[in-house]
Amino acid sequence: MDLLKERILKDGELRPGNILKVDSFVNHQMDIKLMNEVGKEFKRLFADRKIDRILTIEASGIGIAAITAQYFDCPLVFAKKSQSLNIDGAMLLANIESFTYKKTYSAVVAKKYIHEGENVLIIDDFLANGAAANGLIEIVEQAGANVAGIGIVIEKGFQDGGKLLRERGYNLKSLAIVENMDVEKGTIVFRDEE
Amino acid sequence: MDLLKERILKDGELRPGNILKVDSFVNHQMDIKLMNEVGKEFKRLFADRKIDRILTIEASGIGIAAITAQYFDCPLVFAKKSQSLNIDGAMLLANIESFTYKKTYSAVVAKKYIHEGENVLIIDDFLANGAAANGLIEIVEQAGANVAGIGIVIEKGFQDGGKLLRERGYNLKSLAIVENMDVEKGTIVFRDEE
Repeated sequence: MDLLKERILKDGELRPGNILKVDSFVNHQMDIKLMNEVGKEFKRLFADRKIDRILTIEASGIGIAAITAQYFDCPLVFAKKSQSLNIDGAMLLANIESFTYKKTYSAVVAKKYIHEGENVLIIDDFLANGAAANGLIEIVEQAGANVAGIGIVIEKGFQDGGKLLRERGYNLKSLAIVENMDVEKGTIVFRDEE
Repeated sequence: MDLLKERILKDGELRPGNILKVDSFVNHQMDIKLMNEVGKEFKRLFADRKIDRILTIEASGIGIAAITAQYFDCPLVFAKKSQSLNIDGAMLLANIESFTYKKTYSAVVAKKYIHEGENVLIIDDFLANGAAANGLIEIVEQAGANVAGIGIVIEKGFQDGGKLLRERGYNLKSLAIVENMDVEKGTIVFRDEE
């Protein structure tokens, strides 16, 4: 998605430790017009799939997923991180190891919000090693539902997450795949897409 | 907002400790069509104000604020809770005591995302004792910006937060104000609005 890549080149900030900060338009300040284009692009990429529900995880996935859900005309569910004690009833749960924050947490979804046989589109802002995406897949499959697709705004293509998900046959679409980035030189190179 | 009140009566669940759960349409599963109506209603209520920016706090405010920001055609900023270490540079910070989770946390916004003199609309899903709203007000005022309004989806009118904010002169609009609720009887009574 050219508009997104141009914006990453213009406003993305590189930090040591392979960190790409997109705070100014994705996950602290949000550019809503850009997010509308992101939502439309996800709709275009998954137009051939019946989508019953969008699933994301708090916090920064929620805004993108909410905007995207408008284009699919379906409900959104966001998995809560385990400190959210305000869920009752049967739960779907997956443990996720966060590399960004260097801790393990549980992602939780009330069972009643994902139904057996449903087609679920997973949406998130970043994919690196795939920890969050794998946790959400686990939750969908625990529910007996199908992962109809995985839509990611920015994939770090130099980390393993995307490769492994594609090898496992998941329909993963990332709007921008960073092939490599160099903090010293301040360069970002995107993967060419089909 | 009648549509919202009807939905609360239909799908809201009461729990001991004055908890009103709206998990099925606001803050776990989101009904996007309803949230679109919420966004439009906020636009109608604050139509006389110039709004430069919408401010909310992670997590459950983000979806509502993102949808709402479309109607104001302005950027959204979401305050991060203090475990988000991924912010650098100068910060605006407020301490918030969460009654729901019985702990104190810091709300943080990078200083560069709220500018002096801007008119900021604060949006959140719930207002009870006003802890989160007061934290966000503190952040806006630290930045030298103006609180142009506070838009809340559900206010617990039997707690003090809304009353105190109105007494201090803030332009607070809540789409549904619960005057009282009775867990035993399962009844919810809304405040009549002007």
